[in-house]
Amino acid sequence: MALKIAIQGIKGSNHHQVARDYFGDEVDLVECSSFDLLVEHLLNKTADKGIMAIENSIAGSIIPNYALVFSNNLHIIGEHYLNIHHNLMVLKGQTLDDIKEVHSHPMALLQCKDFFRNYKHIKLVEDVDTAETAKRIQEGRLMGVAAIAPKVAAELYGLEIIEANIQTIKDNSTRFIVVKTQNKVLPESAINKASVRFITDHKRGSLAAILNVMSDCNLNLTKIQSLPVIEMPWKYSFFVDVTFEKYQHFEKAKALLEIMSEEFKVLGEYKNARII
Amino acid sequence: MALKIAIQGIKGSNHHQVARDYFGDEVDLVECSSFDLLVEHLLNKTADKGIMAIENSIAGSIIPNYALVFSNNLHIIGEHYLNIHHNLMVLKGQTLDDIKEVHSHPMALLQCKDFFRNYKHIKLVEDVDTAETAKRIQEGRLMGVAAIAPKVAAELYGLEIIEANIQTIKDNSTRFIVVKTQNKVLPESAINKASVRFITDHKRGSLAAILNVMSDCNLNLTKIQSLPVIEMPWKYSFFVDVTFEKYQHFEKAKALLEIMSEEFKVLGEYKNARII
Repeated sequence: MALKIAIQGIKGSNHHQVARDYFGDEVDLVECSSFDLLVEHLLNKTADKGIMAIENSIAGSIIPNYALVFSNNLHIIGEHYLNIHHNLMVLKGQTLDDIKEVHSHPMALLQCKDFFRNYKHIKLVEDVDTAETAKRIQEGRLMGVAAIAPKVAAELYGLEIIEANIQTIKDNSTRFIVVKTQNKVLPESAINKASVRFITDHKRGSLAAILNVMSDCNLNLTKIQSLPVIEMPWKYSFFVDVTFEKYQHFEKAKALLEIMSEEFKVLGEYKNARII
Repeated sequence: MALKIAIQGIKGSNHHQVARDYFGDEVDLVECSSFDLLVEHLLNKTADKGIMAIENSIAGSIIPNYALVFSNNLHIIGEHYLNIHHNLMVLKGQTLDDIKEVHSHPMALLQCKDFFRNYKHIKLVEDVDTAETAKRIQEGRLMGVAAIAPKVAAELYGLEIIEANIQTIKDNSTRFIVVKTQNKVLPESAINKASVRFITDHKRGSLAAILNVMSDCNLNLTKIQSLPVIEMPWKYSFFVDVTFEKYQHFEKAKALLEIMSEEFKVLGEYKNARII
């Protein structure tokens, strides 16, 4: 039986592209209209693994997804980086002048807004997904409406790309994580990255003390983010990603952090997919 | 001439409530359909000050707004905390059973999604603003559509609240910042909070070293966030908020951080509005 992979969005979306890159084409895709639904599929065992965007090199972290991983006890078992290309696509025969509205994901619209400064007649409309509009344009034969979506969406839904790569910042990389309800036990030699979450007490300098320990254990911090603790306004938790050369270094840091911080939790131990 | 205050959204929005709380009612409100437009009004001098949501006790930071403050050289001159109450409102006479769609800001929908789990017949539709739908329902006499919006919107647009406080987490505080193109020079004794941004080099432990200095200077860290540097994928900048008792402590830290970090910049020095 093929592996069931839950993606946010529909076929033709960036999540679909990541599923292909990571798992190949021999999987059953479970299309989810929201990240919440994706998590539900994992918890209900109607999907084996899920793919979630977690961080964009322009806009930063997709914060609610960190909370979803943590609060639903998911495990991060891998990561993947995708270079995002935003393409403006329409029904065949339509031109830029014909477009009255462009629908896409808020993040895509944000990243392309400079392009549309020169086309004041085009209204930007937020949509849940990049590929969804492409599909709707095709199905409804919608004139005057354009989608911003990946190339694969134009292929799947028979649309024409009238402007390629319309994003302002051309080098636009998004990090996706692969999540699962059970931890996948990798051989220690294959693990060189981890995501952790902890709370520090209110004493001044307690975060610095923890970062010192990480540094002493030869961990490289690749991301840090304070996030409010729900139901405890303005008490902060920290989500931290680290890379390391030896798993033993991370093990030592784990033992120390469990003592030094509150509610220390490893969200995942996996292989760094970033080639620097 | 009355002070011109730019708010995100229209009258009846949470930003409007903050404008009232902070400046009173004797101001001219400049309604902006996006945070970008708000910044444009400040840069073009068509508004004197702006109010921007920056952080929510549930969902965390509104990351693109940090980038807007930094890249447009705005100054944070104050902050305000608002307890958010989400109310479900409709045309008078309509009931929960009549509602087919509820339109609101994605954040409001997210915070109320547990409530709607019991009403599967209601479709959640993302909108740019909480108050905007309230206005549209009134103007178009829309049946079957509900808004999630602050109480003030129901008053302004003559709607009926059929369910009050439908958010899952009842204690839901949002932090707003007051921004300006010029720095407002406060007396040092009135300043006990600051927002800064810096880049660290890639050496392991450099962030820990900086946090150590802050701690040594008696600064309390209330927020930290790494954010990718645009055009330099996966090089990170840090946005940090600190509180302190004496301005001299912050001055000392500033002098050290300018030497220790790259591109150190103070985004604002202001009065802490949080009563802990």
